[in-house]
Amino acid sequence: MGNTSNNVGSDVTPVTVAELPGLNTFGISMARIDFAPMGINPPHTHPRATEILTVIEGTILVGFVTSNPENRLITKVLEKGDVFVFPEGLIHFQKNHGNGYAIALGALSSQNPGVITIANVVFGSNPDIAADILAKAFQIDINVVYQIQSKF
Amino acid sequence: MGNTSNNVGSDVTPVTVAELPGLNTFGISMARIDFAPMGINPPHTHPRATEILTVIEGTILVGFVTSNPENRLITKVLEKGDVFVFPEGLIHFQKNHGNGYAIALGALSSQNPGVITIANVVFGSNPDIAADILAKAFQIDINVVYQIQSKF
Amino acid sequence: MGNTSNNVGSDVTPVTVAELPGLNTFGISMARIDFAPMGINPPHTHPRATEILTVIEGTILVGFVTSNPENRLITKVLEKGDVFVFPEGLIHFQKNHGNGYAIALGALSSQNPGVITIANVVFGSNPDIAADILAKAFQIDINVVYQIQSKF
Amino acid sequence: MGNTSNNVGSDVTPVTVAELPGLNTFGISMARIDFAPMGINPPHTHPRATEILTVIEGTILVGFVTSNPENRLITKVLEKGDVFVFPEGLIHFQKNHGNGYAIALGALSSQNPGVITIANVVFGSNPDIAADILAKAFQIDINVVYQIQSKF
Amino acid sequence: MGNTSNNVGSDVTPVTVAELPGLNTFGISMARIDFAPMGINPPHTHPRATEILTVIEGTILVGFVTSNPENRLITKVLEKGDVFVFPEGLIHFQKNHGNGYAIALGALSSQNPGVITIANVVFGSNPDIAADILAKAFQIDINVVYQIQSKF
Amino acid sequence: MGNTSNNVGSDVTPVTVAELPGLNTFGISMARIDFAPMGINPPHTHPRATEILTVIEGTILVGFVTSNPENRLITKVLEKGDVFVFPEGLIHFQKNHGNGYAIALGALSSQNPGVITIANVVFGSNPDIAADILAKAFQIDINVVYQIQSKF
Repeated sequence: MGNTSNNVGSDVTPVTVAELPGLNTFGISMARIDFAPMGINPPHTHPRATEILTVIEGTILVGFVTSNPENRLITKVLEKGDVFVFPEGLIHFQKNHGNGYAIALGALSSQNPGVITIANVVFGSNPDIAADILAKAFQIDINVVYQIQSKF
Repeated sequence: MGNTSNNVGSDVTPVTVAELPGLNTFGISMARIDFAPMGINPPHTHPRATEILTVIEGTILVGFVTSNPENRLITKVLEKGDVFVFPEGLIHFQKNHGNGYAIALGALSSQNPGVITIANVVFGSNPDIAADILAKAFQIDINVVYQIQSKF
Repeated sequence: MGNTSNNVGSDVTPVTVAELPGLNTFGISMARIDFAPMGINPPHTHPRATEILTVIEGTILVGFVTSNPENRLITKVLEKGDVFVFPEGLIHFQKNHGNGYAIALGALSSQNPGVITIANVVFGSNPDIAADILAKAFQIDINVVYQIQSKF
Repeated sequence: MGNTSNNVGSDVTPVTVAELPGLNTFGISMARIDFAPMGINPPHTHPRATEILTVIEGTILVGFVTSNPENRLITKVLEKGDVFVFPEGLIHFQKNHGNGYAIALGALSSQNPGVITIANVVFGSNPDIAADILAKAFQIDINVVYQIQSKF
Repeated sequence: MGNTSNNVGSDVTPVTVAELPGLNTFGISMARIDFAPMGINPPHTHPRATEILTVIEGTILVGFVTSNPENRLITKVLEKGDVFVFPEGLIHFQKNHGNGYAIALGALSSQNPGVITIANVVFGSNPDIAADILAKAFQIDINVVYQIQSKF
Repeated sequence: MGNTSNNVGSDVTPVTVAELPGLNTFGISMARIDFAPMGINPPHTHPRATEILTVIEGTILVGFVTSNPENRLITKVLEKGDVFVFPEGLIHFQKNHGNGYAIALGALSSQNPGVITIANVVFGSNPDIAADILAKAFQIDINVVYQIQSKF
């Protein structure tokens, strides 16, 4: 069981070419996601893979947003055994929608799918993205940017 | 010249398969980006393409952030004629770094690269992503989420 | 739970583009395999996909054979949570290695991976492959060919 | 001329990246197949290539079987100059259909197509696949399995 | 046998997706080339395929030229059974190097490889390329251009 | 500004994986083309890329020829800001169509597109293609071949 004692209440255990070198050139990898009650897998993208996800245990709310100009949010509540697809490169997330723990299994169409956790990349990069750029992009006061950046 | 009278002070003119059907199956497209003084092209990704960008006029600061777990920010100031590459699916941005207008030309390795403007997709999707998910993901108060969502 | 009351004691529930049209062009699919005690998933290939498999419940013996001229058999006993890879197009099989039921989840690197069950295709095609060809290929008496063909 | 003095009465002379390193990354290879009278090229697959075949000399019966659930056998008798296609990963075979020697030339859509000779891989792997698995898969007595295995 | 009573003394019989629709998406095609004594298959390229060629009868001189800046010519005399490779998109040619007829078989890594016969495309397009462009490109008098164009 | 004091009155500045190693595996590259008045970019192909071209300054006539059997010439006059596409592997050219200097920017769908300048490869290879082959291919006297070869 993954350790879900963190800010988001979830834990991802990947099996990609980094963990299993034999996957090289095979165009496939897997990941298990454990959710504590109320836990989320925060908005993220896989820059090099489509993901297909199935629920092993519990109930999970899943969602992704289409690209410009629609920016349409698609969500669904998945029960054990249900399957859902996140198209390559689109921003998506999951949330434990039940009362107990939940487990999902995702398969990705690349041995090296990559993960870009939006909040961490945008507000927690190393070094930080200049605050005036983020203030203008998110249309927030520059002090709010500094405050969010201090959390990551 | 694109109309840069907007919140971010930039305008993108794409030439993809949507504008030029003859590009179909050819794996390439282009976009011109016009920047007003102080204008930015806010953090975004192309889910299906790598981008190569060159400066036609002015001086432009460019940057992208690598994926988990490094989240490393790479930036460079480009003068007229300089070239830079944004790898497929990574979050990147540009900012006018001079005093006048600036123009850049980007080429993308897909006829249908897609654009995901991070702020618009995360805080301006249709319908909105549930505010409690974004509050936990960005580690901000739920009222700050509502406030940002009201701008998009 | 799949119905495992058959000659091989296993049942496969696929989620490919045939069952979920939205998978089209995404290069990924999934399948759940249920095993009765002693059940096997008989030697087969996926002509268009590599498979990554993980055990959800029980203990499973897995194996595949490399191509000419080595024809080397690779096997491993997988416990719950273990992961294994079957390279594209190679002949592979699984067998329930515990006393109770077992469940595995496979992900495949194509939305349309295909399944070629060796025994059924070789001895049960429609119409039959000429018996003299199979007698020579398997170096068995032609009556043994007829006998096997009568089972499929 | 290939040496066809063997159990199947045929001989394959491949020109793949293993024999001609300059083929690397080019996605193509060739093979010549010589058939003695009555000779067969036994059921096999190429895990990474489609094959197109033409008859240089003689008359050849060719066939392949489609995948689950149809398992349909397609056959054709080819005269000199005729052409036939075996889709990627499907089980196929050829048989000399005339009285003299026959020669065919196949081209494959990979520089490293691989060859899986079904009988040799299933009954002659090294080490052997457990006989109880093959008995159940082919629905034959375990002693018949041992007997076939002893030939490979 | 192809009809080689033409200006170049050769004839190509292609088997591509245009002649055999079943080749669609399979990434492979074939062509037979018949050569009269002294016949040539003039300089040409396949814009979408690498070609592997083998000699069925006779002796054939083959050659291709590498790209800028080397423009290196590689040639070889092939006897019956020899094999040669023309990398994708490079200009290549063949010439009957014996006294009798010759036959070669080429396989191409696309079901739709395309053929660009250099002389016909450059001097015989429909309509003609402006003569001043060709005069400058080939560094010849414009009247020589007109003269060559009149032949195609 | 590129040096256009040469026989064709144009200069190409490429940015491919040879100049910018970071482009490796990214499937994209760029090139700037400077034209003197009357300058041409002579007929050439990119064996591994489609090209999309836009005019930065001046007026440019562009053209390409389709493959066998049509050999159809497609041309267009492009003003500043116009865009045109040259499909992979087809022979194409550009000509300065205005009175002053002109600049175009091309993007190519490969990090290693290659350039085959037709005249240089056909008449200026190293060593030369045998003159009798070119005489027959272009239907010109062998002395005309020698004369053109002497220019390259």
